[in-house]
Amino acid sequence: MKALRVGLCGVGNVGGAVLKLLKESSSLLEQQGGFLFELVQVGARKGRSVVPYDDVDVTTDLMEVANNPDVDIFVELIGGTEFADELVQTAIRNGKQIVTANKALLAIKGDEIFQLAKQNNVQIGFEASVAGGTPVIKALREGLVANKVEWFAGILNGTSNYILTEMSVEKTEFSLALSKAQELGLAEADPTMDIDGTDAAQKASILAALAFHVPFNFEAVNYEGIDKVDVEDLKYAEELGYNIKHIAFGRLLDNSVFVSAYPTLVPHEVILSQVGQQMNALEIYAQGIGSTVYYGPGAGPEPTASAVVADLVDLAKGGWQAEPARHSDNILRQESSIKVPRYFRLMVKNEPGVIAKISAVFANQDISIEALIQHEIKVNNGEQTDEVPVVILSGSVSDQIVKELLNQLNDMEEVADCLKQFRIHAKIN
Amino acid sequence: MKALRVGLCGVGNVGGAVLKLLKESSSLLEQQGGFLFELVQVGARKGRSVVPYDDVDVTTDLMEVANNPDVDIFVELIGGTEFADELVQTAIRNGKQIVTANKALLAIKGDEIFQLAKQNNVQIGFEASVAGGTPVIKALREGLVANKVEWFAGILNGTSNYILTEMSVEKTEFSLALSKAQELGLAEADPTMDIDGTDAAQKASILAALAFHVPFNFEAVNYEGIDKVDVEDLKYAEELGYNIKHIAFGRLLDNSVFVSAYPTLVPHEVILSQVGQQMNALEIYAQGIGSTVYYGPGAGPEPTASAVVADLVDLAKGGWQAEPARHSDNILRQESSIKVPRYFRLMVKNEPGVIAKISAVFANQDISIEALIQHEIKVNNGEQTDEVPVVILSGSVSDQIVKELLNQLNDMEEVADCLKQFRIHAKIN
Repeated sequence: MKALRVGLCGVGNVGGAVLKLLKESSSLLEQQGGFLFELVQVGARKGRSVVPYDDVDVTTDLMEVANNPDVDIFVELIGGTEFADELVQTAIRNGKQIVTANKALLAIKGDEIFQLAKQNNVQIGFEASVAGGTPVIKALREGLVANKVEWFAGILNGTSNYILTEMSVEKTEFSLALSKAQELGLAEADPTMDIDGTDAAQKASILAALAFHVPFNFEAVNYEGIDKVDVEDLKYAEELGYNIKHIAFGRLLDNSVFVSAYPTLVPHEVILSQVGQQMNALEIYAQGIGSTVYYGPGAGPEPTASAVVADLVDLAKGGWQAEPARHSDNILRQESSIKVPRYFRLMVKNEPGVIAKISAVFANQDISIEALIQHEIKVNNGEQTDEVPVVILSGSVSDQIVKELLNQLNDMEEVADCLKQFRIHAKIN
Repeated sequence: MKALRVGLCGVGNVGGAVLKLLKESSSLLEQQGGFLFELVQVGARKGRSVVPYDDVDVTTDLMEVANNPDVDIFVELIGGTEFADELVQTAIRNGKQIVTANKALLAIKGDEIFQLAKQNNVQIGFEASVAGGTPVIKALREGLVANKVEWFAGILNGTSNYILTEMSVEKTEFSLALSKAQELGLAEADPTMDIDGTDAAQKASILAALAFHVPFNFEAVNYEGIDKVDVEDLKYAEELGYNIKHIAFGRLLDNSVFVSAYPTLVPHEVILSQVGQQMNALEIYAQGIGSTVYYGPGAGPEPTASAVVADLVDLAKGGWQAEPARHSDNILRQESSIKVPRYFRLMVKNEPGVIAKISAVFANQDISIEALIQHEIKVNNGEQTDEVPVVILSGSVSDQIVKELLNQLNDMEEVADCLKQFRIHAKIN
């Protein structure tokens, strides 16, 4: 097999790990199927100092790599959506195969990029964009190729999962757990995209495109981050038999596809509830097979590098068609019409008849109450407090109805505050 | 893409499900990459009556399918190792690509078959041979292609896992749990190969060949089945923080490969210990990535059929080299020299000084005692019994030393019986 000539842009943590793995695994790859890769050029804004190999051509002009006629495969590891898009589209127009770890790029510009790739008859590898070293793209696209996927549910953001695990196990408050994650290198200096759910939502939109054969469309994903979760909520969830996880969820109902990413109560008996620390996991439910679950490191330089090199090998073997998302009658819809069971935490006046009044508000909206907790709260001198927390698990409700319900509850004199509302992971099938 | 012509032999539960899935998924497969399969001939000993499709050519002479010049891909689903071997080797000599779900065939004759395939330049798909609908072969061979696998540990026999789960959760005795499995269709009329560990050991030898690049060699796998596990052992394990699972284990140490399949105490915090019912799971530890885990249905007609069709698609895309196992300096060795921690259950005389004497025997063999349980046992009238059970968790010991230890214990007057000895899953890395 003739060597494939690789050009790589972006030598941060991941790019450095890819360079290292390509060097170290070259004899393993050659043994396993005659796969040979020649690193033709590296684009690094900081120049040669960040590339520890003398025999590699390094340029600070990244566009030079995308235009280099000696490059067969263009590896994009710079991140971001503007310049990365320009680089990738240039490389595609030059007929180069693409490997990218950039979930934001695919979630936002994926459709345009895959169309261009199809026109230019090139392939795009993006295993590294979701769940790092855990081959979930391969599982969805190849392992389950003959099966209709009905839904998937995944823990796709390692930073969020680490913070929720700390809050749940150690009862550490959110801000302290975040600081600890940053100290350990598990959260970035600016952790906004991880904490507010954007990162997980972008990954969910990529998985949905593959699972349900719809266009990449990040706009259609409803999401919230973990910043609304308190240690208090994790304690109540535990008491009720749940863990709170940030769950990316995609579902096919008839021909409609719904995608979301929310902090979600997951029952202890569901395997996702047991996934701790910074690990990722994805459960895929397909017709005929039922559930399969993929668990592993979701980020980190070395796992991501492993996915990038696996993509290079896939391309050496012929790759996969471009345009994964264009061949069905399925339609991506706003997810807010979906009904799901919910968790509510309220502060209410500690006086007779309050629970009855709250229950009536739920009943008026035709929402069942499945569980309710009101603990006896004593203050230090043994007297009772004026306000007490009440936790309610409800039956299935849409976002629309929840909004009305919360308005009505907030209007009640007896309700001091509607503190929280989270979704509950409904066991489907 | 031109249609690939498929010939399929064996229309039992799995074969029937493959025929159905090929029919039902044909438009999905065509949409996803232009994959077209034409079912040219079906070999079924029982003839046309078992094939519900009128437009398919059916023969009772299976060799006719292996010799049919119109067949591009030969799908072997008859099971067994004699005639299946003959069919597969004939098909290979005729230049046909192969898809098989037959783990016994690969474990026992795999090396010969893959050499022949290489000579004839044909590919062999065998995703269905291990863990059914869970794409573990693909993960090992492709997802982790650039990473050195250090070890794997898997629950690979669904029947055994169902029985152990029943025994652990419901405290059902082995024979009753087996009957229940048979009633539910989770165990065959003759469950020997599942119960005695053969099935899991065969699958372990296939995984080892892929993970460590050694020849298929079932002979080198040391194994025992779950028939030696009592409900009593599961109770003690639980008390000590373990579950007992049947674990197939493969490990690379320097250039030596060790493969085994034993009932094993798995600590509760290890994810494999939480895999219940008839489910399978495989943990793979690779350099740079750490652990990834794959969980799903390990058997059943539809999951297995899904793996067979995924293999057909892989072959349509060019497949993978034959001879997965021939390109390294690694050597498969008898596993009995490996040291692992152990669980022992003894019946001992209820008299002073016994524990001291037993401890001395362990100390003489230089084996540490990590935990010891002796419960106070009262008989109905409140008096103590003559004999009491003692459970010991030891440090790491080889099979050889365990044998000597057990001999010495059995020679002791104070030891009524050495009831059990199981391995403990050591946390590596």
